[in-house]
Amino acid sequence: MSPQQPAEPAAGRREPLVIDAHGHFTTTPPAHQRFRDEQLDRLARLAEDPSRPLPVPPEIGDDLLRESVEHHQLKVLRERGGDLMVFSPKASGMEHHVADRATARDWARQSNDLVARVTELFPDNFAGVCQLPQTPGGSLADSVAELRRCVETLGFVGCNLNPDPSGGHWTAPPLTDAYWFPLYEAMTELDVPAMVHVSSSCNPAFHTLGAHYLNADTSVFMQLLLGDLFDRFPTLRFVIPHGGGAVPYHWGRYRGLAARLNRPDPGEHLLRNVFFDTCVYHQPGVDLLLHVMGADHVLFASEMLGAVRGADPDTGIAWDDTKRYIDRAGLTPDEREKVFETNARRVYPRLDARLRAAGR
Amino acid sequence: MSPQQPAEPAAGRREPLVIDAHGHFTTTPPAHQRFRDEQLDRLARLAEDPSRPLPVPPEIGDDLLRESVEHHQLKVLRERGGDLMVFSPKASGMEHHVADRATARDWARQSNDLVARVTELFPDNFAGVCQLPQTPGGSLADSVAELRRCVETLGFVGCNLNPDPSGGHWTAPPLTDAYWFPLYEAMTELDVPAMVHVSSSCNPAFHTLGAHYLNADTSVFMQLLLGDLFDRFPTLRFVIPHGGGAVPYHWGRYRGLAARLNRPDPGEHLLRNVFFDTCVYHQPGVDLLLHVMGADHVLFASEMLGAVRGADPDTGIAWDDTKRYIDRAGLTPDEREKVFETNARRVYPRLDARLRAAGR
Repeated sequence: MSPQQPAEPAAGRREPLVIDAHGHFTTTPPAHQRFRDEQLDRLARLAEDPSRPLPVPPEIGDDLLRESVEHHQLKVLRERGGDLMVFSPKASGMEHHVADRATARDWARQSNDLVARVTELFPDNFAGVCQLPQTPGGSLADSVAELRRCVETLGFVGCNLNPDPSGGHWTAPPLTDAYWFPLYEAMTELDVPAMVHVSSSCNPAFHTLGAHYLNADTSVFMQLLLGDLFDRFPTLRFVIPHGGGAVPYHWGRYRGLAARLNRPDPGEHLLRNVFFDTCVYHQPGVDLLLHVMGADHVLFASEMLGAVRGADPDTGIAWDDTKRYIDRAGLTPDEREKVFETNARRVYPRLDARLRAAGR
Repeated sequence: MSPQQPAEPAAGRREPLVIDAHGHFTTTPPAHQRFRDEQLDRLARLAEDPSRPLPVPPEIGDDLLRESVEHHQLKVLRERGGDLMVFSPKASGMEHHVADRATARDWARQSNDLVARVTELFPDNFAGVCQLPQTPGGSLADSVAELRRCVETLGFVGCNLNPDPSGGHWTAPPLTDAYWFPLYEAMTELDVPAMVHVSSSCNPAFHTLGAHYLNADTSVFMQLLLGDLFDRFPTLRFVIPHGGGAVPYHWGRYRGLAARLNRPDPGEHLLRNVFFDTCVYHQPGVDLLLHVMGADHVLFASEMLGAVRGADPDTGIAWDDTKRYIDRAGLTPDEREKVFETNARRVYPRLDARLRAAGR
């Protein structure tokens, strides 16, 4: 398991396009957060001032927006040899636990509009994935409408789906429940996948970045193992981020549990529809992920600028420079191409179509 | 990362004692579960029949008790080359979510008494670890009393501590909170560790064995990373089971998060007090665990007969025959001795004392 030398490009072979399947707009101009604060302030004072109007989204100029990614995600993407990032609103900022429907709708719309403008400013480097206006226990009608708007009008290629809109209290039914089907029907019709991604934890037992995110990944995989969701929705696709939570590390447990529970082997049952990203921030973890799950089921991703910042003092490698780990994982050229490019084009066909139209 | 050949015993060197640090009494005689059913039935009818007395624990003969482990845990332990199992009541059966204090007290006492009798029937092969009579939000006074009884009277060497007595609703404060300190004071005084182990999930989002257990392991490690519990209790020791949940697989994430949150590196900060067991059911997972965490911080364990049953059809190896994976992990003789024997003796000094008294 000692780190290998980075792979050399094979002679005569085009280097794969490097598609980072998991990036969030964590560096929005401050006016965006001020708008959110106004929304929350209005809700907090609604009892004393019921006539207070919904806040109006701010005007944010192109220059400011350009700067907010050019010196951050885009700079890091280029420095690390990435070509394109699948880009969505800040995950911890989605805050689906705020139960007011109009607030959720306006917040998702404004967050998605900013992402859309980044994809227009840098069409070669960003493709949009949308935040849904979910609320705890609320109807998914607004989420379906926002998904349609983002895909059909803004050119987005997928969505982020929160399996726990309560923010750490886990009051929603499993993702195999009929509650979610209206969204799956729209996803299937539009042929877009969802990254299964929770937002901030309101539960002091779960740190958002160090527990809640990983627990969600783990929990959802087990929900899917117990159900037959993909019999009903054979083309539905989920990306489970953060290297699949605990799942690849415990792959024997999942296979053994499936056998004990009279469920099909998860390798057969789920991996046509479920993919893992590479947001695992050290070499042994990425090695295990690729070795156990196989290159067909893994999408390159870094989540930068995300949970971790800075570099491992022992190696000098930035924690989330996951391309470095993949380059040293001993993949064949075919496997590299799958992980960096073709899996993402397969899971996000609307991204593939856009790339083809641009001759890439 | 290809599986290595099993290690050969070094010439002239005694093979380590093989101590399995994580086994549950999942095969109790049926009368034990009938007693539990009577407890739950009484609680369900308490409104209509408030005078109904607490049920009386059943008499279970030695022969029945002997049979219930001889053909199960003890047989498998011997077949696989194990010497001694650290044995506790069935984890999913603790059911701390049942809030009635007297019920919790009687159930823990009866469950622990059965474990104690197994350790008396097979003193060379089993050492006891107790269930605590926790309830959601309840005082820990009964838990402290039961811990004292089990250690001082029954010769137990540790306890199982449930960080989520609610059973999947996670209403308890983090393990760094003062709520838990009375228990830590008793553990420190008695010099016994706790395995951090949840019980059944009452939350349909979390499958008990496929999500809740692993999530708890992950969540608790992050709780400890955020606090300074071991400054206050420098000799307090926790074993985090199931290979530490998602933690070793995401070790770079934890180191990077600690740096970002201005916390000390978890390798320095936590690993004098926190240990992981080897209940990871495939070779690549065990390889990662041992490689990343290091042999000083890992205790051999199988959790048999536990979450998984049967064997991997691809290899014929029983999922939970974790000794096979460790034998193939390329450890040095020193490292093998730590993982199989000396770490357990260090973490459970009362077990060490018992073994020494028996000349082992």
